[in-house]
Amino acid sequence: MDSLKIFVPATVSNVTCGFDILGFPVEAPGDIMTFRKTTKKEVRITHISGADHLPYETHRNIAGIVAQKMLEDNGMPFGLEITLDKGIMPGSGIGSSGASASGTAFAVNRLLDNPYTDIELVPYAMLGEISASGTRHADNVAPALYGGIVLIRSYEPLDIIRLDSPEDLYCTIFHPLVEIKTSDARAILRKNLPLDKAVRQWGNVAGLVTGLLKNDYHLIARSMEDVVAEPVRSLLIPDYDKLKPAAMDHGALGFGISGSGPAVFALSRGEETARKVREAMTRAYQSTGIKFNTYVSRIAKQGAKIVS
Amino acid sequence: MDSLKIFVPATVSNVTCGFDILGFPVEAPGDIMTFRKTTKKEVRITHISGADHLPYETHRNIAGIVAQKMLEDNGMPFGLEITLDKGIMPGSGIGSSGASASGTAFAVNRLLDNPYTDIELVPYAMLGEISASGTRHADNVAPALYGGIVLIRSYEPLDIIRLDSPEDLYCTIFHPLVEIKTSDARAILRKNLPLDKAVRQWGNVAGLVTGLLKNDYHLIARSMEDVVAEPVRSLLIPDYDKLKPAAMDHGALGFGISGSGPAVFALSRGEETARKVREAMTRAYQSTGIKFNTYVSRIAKQGAKIVS
Repeated sequence: MDSLKIFVPATVSNVTCGFDILGFPVEAPGDIMTFRKTTKKEVRITHISGADHLPYETHRNIAGIVAQKMLEDNGMPFGLEITLDKGIMPGSGIGSSGASASGTAFAVNRLLDNPYTDIELVPYAMLGEISASGTRHADNVAPALYGGIVLIRSYEPLDIIRLDSPEDLYCTIFHPLVEIKTSDARAILRKNLPLDKAVRQWGNVAGLVTGLLKNDYHLIARSMEDVVAEPVRSLLIPDYDKLKPAAMDHGALGFGISGSGPAVFALSRGEETARKVREAMTRAYQSTGIKFNTYVSRIAKQGAKIVS
Repeated sequence: MDSLKIFVPATVSNVTCGFDILGFPVEAPGDIMTFRKTTKKEVRITHISGADHLPYETHRNIAGIVAQKMLEDNGMPFGLEITLDKGIMPGSGIGSSGASASGTAFAVNRLLDNPYTDIELVPYAMLGEISASGTRHADNVAPALYGGIVLIRSYEPLDIIRLDSPEDLYCTIFHPLVEIKTSDARAILRKNLPLDKAVRQWGNVAGLVTGLLKNDYHLIARSMEDVVAEPVRSLLIPDYDKLKPAAMDHGALGFGISGSGPAVFALSRGEETARKVREAMTRAYQSTGIKFNTYVSRIAKQGAKIVS
C-alpha cells in the first residue's frame, strides 16, 4: 500500500457528566486526509483546505507531529506527503485537532502494515492533542479511533473501553461561530471540586453508563447533567441559555457542551427528534445575529476509516 | 398480619470508587428484628440483644425513630413493640444502623399493607441514618432494601438503580474490633477534591459499573481503586497496609474500606478465592494482637426479608 485516503469523524467529548473520560464520534462532519509514501524520508504537509490558519511546517502541524514520531519509532522506513481537507473547523469543540491526530495515527499504522493495536495508537494521537492544547487528553482521539461511545477509564495506565449504546441514539451538534481557546476553557475550570459536587458527578456518570449499556433512555436522560464544567464553561458560549431550553423543550434526552465548546450538543432518541431539536435551536439562536453550523448524525459505530 | 419477624443484612457501601453512591448487601451477618402490633398507639423497643449501648427510648433508637415517623404519617393506626437481635455490631462499617433503619422501614410497610414502594421507603430509612451519623446517606439503606449492587445516582431527587452483577462475585469482610466514629471518618475527608483526582474516581466508577453489567472481572478489578476516601480513612484502620496486600496477593479482584470502616472488604471471583483471601488476611493480622471478625458471603440478591 503506497497511498491512503481516509475519513476521520468529528467527536463529542465529555458527554455532560463524563468530563475527560467519555466521547463519541458522529457520522458527519469529518476530515478527509490523504497519505502518500515517498522515498525521501521526511514528512511533508503538501495541502490544507477548509481551514485558514493551520501551519504547514511538519513540527508545528498536528498530523506532521504524529506521523513524524510514528515513522521515527519504526526506523523511518519511508517518507510521507499528507493532505488535509478539514471538514471540521478548528476551534469548534468537536475534535478538530483530535481528528487530525487520530486520522494520522490510523493511516500511518496502515501504511506501516499495522504494527499497533488501537490502544497503542492512542498515545501517538495524544501527542497531537498535547501540541494543540497543552493537555494530554484522549476523549476525542480514542472515540475517533475506536468508534462508538468510548470510556477512558484511566490515563495512567491507559485503559480504554468501548461501550455499547442504543442503536437509535442521535446527536444534534450546534456550533456557534465564535472563538473559545481550549486553554481558556481549561483555565476557567476550578482546580478543586467540592466533594458533594464530585459525588453528584460520579453518580451521574454511573447512571449514564448504566443507561447506555441497558438501553434505558429515561436513565440516560436523568443522568445527563454536568455540575463541573457546564456551570463555568457555559458562560463563554453566547446565549447558551437560549439553546439548552430549546433543545430540552423539544424532546432532547440531554444537552451539554461538546468538549470545551463553543459547540454544544444534544442527544435524542431517533433522527426525527434530533432534527426537531436542531430546528428549535436554530429558531432560538437566530435573534443573536451570531452565525452557526449544525449537524445531525447517529452516534457513529466506526471511527476513522479508509475511503480508498 | 399482626406480627413479623425479619432478617436484614449487613451492607458494604462505597465499594472503593463509588463513594456515597454504591453499596451491596451480604447474606451474613445480619440482624433479626420482630415487630408486633399493639392497640396502645405507641412505639416501644422491648428487647435488644447483641449490642450493649443501643438506647431503648423510642426517639433515640433508630428503629423507634423510623417506625414512629411511618406510623404517624399513616394516622397512627396501631402501636408497635420492636425487638432487635443485632448480628451486625454497631460501629463496624457494615451498615449496622442502616440495617436497623431499613429493616424497620421494610417491616412497618408490610404491617401497614404496603403503602410504600421501595424507593419511597428509602427516605424513611435515611431518617435513621441521619440520627445515627448526622449525614443523609442511602448507600447502606438502599442496598439493604433492594438487594444486589445498588446505585444511588442522585439524592435530590432520589434516584436508585439496581445493577445486575456477576453470579459468582463473593465478598470477604474483615472487621478489626476497633472503634471509628462515622463522624470522625467524615471529618477526615478533604472537603475539596483536586479535579484530576475526581476525574480518576469517576473514570473508575464508570469502569466498575461497566464491568459489573458486562460480567467483565478484569475490568471490575482494574476499576476497584479509591483515590478519595482510602488515602485518608485507611490511616484510621490499624495495619490496613497488612490487610490489602494479603487480599490482593491471594486473588482478590479488589479491596477497600467498607463504608467508613473499620471493616474492610475484598471482592473475589468464586467462594473458594474469597475464603483464601479471608485466610490470608487472618494470617497477616494475627501479629497485631487486635481481635477481629470475618465473613465470607455472596453478594446478596435480596435485601431485608420476612423470616416468619
